[in-house]
Amino acid sequence: MNARVRIALDAMGGDLGPSMAVPGAALSLVRHPDTEFLMFGDEPTITALLKAHPGLAKNSRVFHTEVAIAMDTKPSQALRQGRGKSSMWMALDAVKRGEADAAVSAGNTGALMAMSMFCLQTLPNIDRPAIAGLWPTISSECIVLDIGANVGADARLLVDNAGMGAALARALFHVDKPSVGLLNIGVEEVKGLDEVKRAHEALKKADLPIVYHGFVEGDDIGKGTVDVVVTEGFSGNIALKAAEGTAKQIAAYLRAAMSRSLVAKIGAFFAQGAFRALGDKMDPRHANGGIFLGLQGIVIKSHGGADAIGFASAVDLGYDMAKSGLVRTISEDVERFQNALQQAPLLKSTDAIT
Amino acid sequence: MNARVRIALDAMGGDLGPSMAVPGAALSLVRHPDTEFLMFGDEPTITALLKAHPGLAKNSRVFHTEVAIAMDTKPSQALRQGRGKSSMWMALDAVKRGEADAAVSAGNTGALMAMSMFCLQTLPNIDRPAIAGLWPTISSECIVLDIGANVGADARLLVDNAGMGAALARALFHVDKPSVGLLNIGVEEVKGLDEVKRAHEALKKADLPIVYHGFVEGDDIGKGTVDVVVTEGFSGNIALKAAEGTAKQIAAYLRAAMSRSLVAKIGAFFAQGAFRALGDKMDPRHANGGIFLGLQGIVIKSHGGADAIGFASAVDLGYDMAKSGLVRTISEDVERFQNALQQAPLLKSTDAIT
Repeated sequence: MNARVRIALDAMGGDLGPSMAVPGAALSLVRHPDTEFLMFGDEPTITALLKAHPGLAKNSRVFHTEVAIAMDTKPSQALRQGRGKSSMWMALDAVKRGEADAAVSAGNTGALMAMSMFCLQTLPNIDRPAIAGLWPTISSECIVLDIGANVGADARLLVDNAGMGAALARALFHVDKPSVGLLNIGVEEVKGLDEVKRAHEALKKADLPIVYHGFVEGDDIGKGTVDVVVTEGFSGNIALKAAEGTAKQIAAYLRAAMSRSLVAKIGAFFAQGAFRALGDKMDPRHANGGIFLGLQGIVIKSHGGADAIGFASAVDLGYDMAKSGLVRTISEDVERFQNALQQAPLLKSTDAIT
Repeated sequence: MNARVRIALDAMGGDLGPSMAVPGAALSLVRHPDTEFLMFGDEPTITALLKAHPGLAKNSRVFHTEVAIAMDTKPSQALRQGRGKSSMWMALDAVKRGEADAAVSAGNTGALMAMSMFCLQTLPNIDRPAIAGLWPTISSECIVLDIGANVGADARLLVDNAGMGAALARALFHVDKPSVGLLNIGVEEVKGLDEVKRAHEALKKADLPIVYHGFVEGDDIGKGTVDVVVTEGFSGNIALKAAEGTAKQIAAYLRAAMSRSLVAKIGAFFAQGAFRALGDKMDPRHANGGIFLGLQGIVIKSHGGADAIGFASAVDLGYDMAKSGLVRTISEDVERFQNALQQAPLLKSTDAIT
């Protein structure tokens, strides 16, 4: 790997486009001065925005693209419109060509996933990439996947997600045998969806390089019960958004509660340092960034509604992933996981992806 | 309806059984002195516990039962073991016989649902009851259903849930046309599960006594975007638990942040009244209690891990439901909803429950 970390940005993605991507990159550059940016998008706009960030301008190259994928474009349409010429595609292509170590986009999730699969290809034995999120827990963080790539997964896909999540945990958390739990609506074995139960049986019996914890519930995520929480994209995304919503809601209560009386205001004045620390922890923007797992390259998806602070977190994540050479580690780990599963073929053939 | 509200308690349900159910009932009685309790369970244990609550003892009748349904019993097994003799069944049967206005249990959800359907029967046109929860929002509250009764619903069931949730909202929130949203992983129409999309089409086109908002995401629940959030039991339960977990997690951060420095401690001292108000809002125990909708009677499910405070909230909810004559209102409303749908049969016959 290049000594400097090269990040390719889809500067046109997200609700705010370059006006948050450029200052977001500037924020991340302060934290990681050994970053170089390749920015894809509308050149005049980006260049104008870079004027306010001379440090970033020095470490950036801007590549003009004519096409920007809208947030509501269907994946198939995005591929037709944007292949080979959109800011999103060109950022991914920079990773494919070895000119960037990671791509970051706040664009439309479905389009980014479709383009990533088309441009970068999946890892051997992985049919469908997943999106993993880092979730803050009481003690540290855990990985939750899938948070929105594949809706309604079957048992095979859930087991694949367990393998990819475990590989990511091993690389990011430096644990030899990450603990893995399967998200369900009760810890008793009788509950839950059939596909979840079948994945549970497979994970329980196979000799895998993980500590399989069994079922976990929604509140186990934030407790940090396991290193990796495995689910499919629908419930994973809903859990994530429900938790984000709750954090914002409590922040609103807190502001209201602290401004209600003079005594509370005095209290708030003295406690403001503590509140700031709390605000940092609670702020969903600091956990922003979904990692696309299962691809031959690093792709980070920022929240579409992210501001510069949120986008900077996603860029940070791309930096960390690139710096640690994760793609190779994950690729090896997923292979090891798949081999272990193949030696204990517990899933019926009807469990294959259809 | 009897002038006093008569609540039948399954005193043996939950992780803690009578030792939380009895003090929980006592707490609720203080708030609603016109309550009468019928307590079903181990008579000597309950009577001993009632000694500490003379006010409650005066307003309670205790009925001895030999059988208590364990928290991990399968529904079919619970019916075999407990029909006609368990504390859970007898509490439901009191509602059926017209001797109680509502039943409250912290027991095993699956068993309680199976027994409720068997003992009380469903409303006309409703095949499967749902569990509705009251979710605190920034402005007030909303109804979320299903939070755990039916895993993996089809379009028809989602539409039924919309009807039942709207009826509950009309009765509890006193709005003529409640706003209803369908939980999905993106507001764009292209996203989400097929069944969710089909329910969306049906709700969009039918002439129903609701304001159909379209898709909502996980963070819309706490924002109070709509009065009723409709989903199936798997994702609904995961959303609920993820939000509860986040609330607990933030409370832990808050305690840690406020005790970190002397200045913060001074702040916390002055702000303690505000914190107490916040704690009340954040405490998941105060939103405890799932409402079983679609039955010919009122059944409230308390969280299995509830303490006396949590159980008291569930009893309060049973009281409110009984007091407002909700079962009749809901029954009429569901019928109106079903009629409107039948006049515009948008669901293909393959959407019928299988």
